Amino acid sequence: MICHKKTVDLMGTQETDLHDVTDQVIEAVSESGVENGLVTVHTPGSTSAVTTIEYEPGCLQDLKDLLDRLAPKNGEYSHNASWEDGNGYSHLRAALLGPSLSIPVEGGGLVLGTWQQVVVCDFDNRPRRREVYIQVLGLAGEAV
Amino acid sequence: MICHKKTVDLMGTQETDLHDVTDQVIEAVSESGVENGLVTVHTPGSTSAVTTIEYEPGCLQDLKDLLDRLAPKNGEYSHNASWEDGNGYSHLRAALLGPSLSIPVEGGGLVLGTWQQVVVCDFDNRPRRREVYIQVLGLAGEAV
Amino acid sequence: MICHKKTVDLMGTQETDLHDVTDQVIEAVSESGVENGLVTVHTPGSTSAVTTIEYEPGCLQDLKDLLDRLAPKNGEYSHNASWEDGNGYSHLRAALLGPSLSIPVEGGGLVLGTWQQVVVCDFDNRPRRREVYIQVLGLAGEAV
Repeated sequence: MICHKKTVDLMGTQETDLHDVTDQVIEAVSESGVENGLVTVHTPGSTSAVTTIEYEPGCLQDLKDLLDRLAPKNGEYSHNASWEDGNGYSHLRAALLGPSLSIPVEGGGLVLGTWQQVVVCDFDNRPRRREVYIQVLGLAGEAV
Repeated sequence: MICHKKTVDLMGTQETDLHDVTDQVIEAVSESGVENGLVTVHTPGSTSAVTTIEYEPGCLQDLKDLLDRLAPKNGEYSHNASWEDGNGYSHLRAALLGPSLSIPVEGGGLVLGTWQQVVVCDFDNRPRRREVYIQVLGLAGEAV
Repeated sequence: MICHKKTVDLMGTQETDLHDVTDQVIEAVSESGVENGLVTVHTPGSTSAVTTIEYEPGCLQDLKDLLDRLAPKNGEYSHNASWEDGNGYSHLRAALLGPSLSIPVEGGGLVLGTWQQVVVCDFDNRPRRREVYIQVLGLAGEAV
């Protein structure tokens, strides 16, 4: 069995950043030599998350708008009252979407739809460098 | 180590479809010969998602109602303005729930609650055939 | 390859309970002998879920408040109309967050942010004992 890791550095802004990391995930799978297995994309940090979406400007705007409705930046948050860092909304958005995503690898490739990209969401209200963790677990040979 | 895959074809409607695939997941685990490991249910496509719920008509209706409130079918979406395919709400629902789910396998069986079923959600506004990907990764023998 | 499991018993109340299980997950990884792999935290049951959040009182309150807005305890639910157990809101919150989470293991440790804890959410409206399932899958040796 192979366990391969790759990290990717992303730089965010003070607004919500939606980073397409699909190419880096494909690259990690290719580097790993895994033919059949599972790739996990994980963001260590409580104000970021991972999901998939069609990476086109309309969908990205719609996702931001949805999250602005669910957890508005200027809402009232107990976290902000205690810590005064103003990113209570970021924590909620991250907890809702979740910090990781696992996708099957088949024949050395990612099982994804044509219009489906892997997106790392940075919700924090200050520019942060994020180290995203891509892990490939599986077999070099055939699936059975 | 074993890596086994099974695909399941589902046919959707133009409404939100919630498919119970629990039996197919159990079948995939059984076919795989994996005694202890992880099964991943994944839907390649940006307008579908996977989660668990009690598969009874009340809960299914409630989930549809919740998603209708969060991302209404007839809401204003930038995606629709650009692409005119009217499925902006489908993309949002899919990104919110996420495209995959991994469940432990123990003693050749799924670790699930009695009232907990694995559900593939097809949110698209046109009838689509979905190929759902079930992958079992693990050991034929005992866990340690 | 190693596949190790650990179960953790949690006791809930009739309110939403957010249990920090990070220490138990670290312990499971340590017990397993896995140096590089994947740990999955899974809650079998349709009224509970797993995510990560900064485990401080403000964030926990904010998450409860968010879920109270999205799926209010005293809302109208078809599930309640049929079953009269009053936990329709619990099922929705669980389906939204999802029942499991997988996190990479590197060098025998969890890849988590400093302010990021693994949280099991018990949404049920009656006190329940929950058996949470922690599974570690991976290699005793080096990643490649």
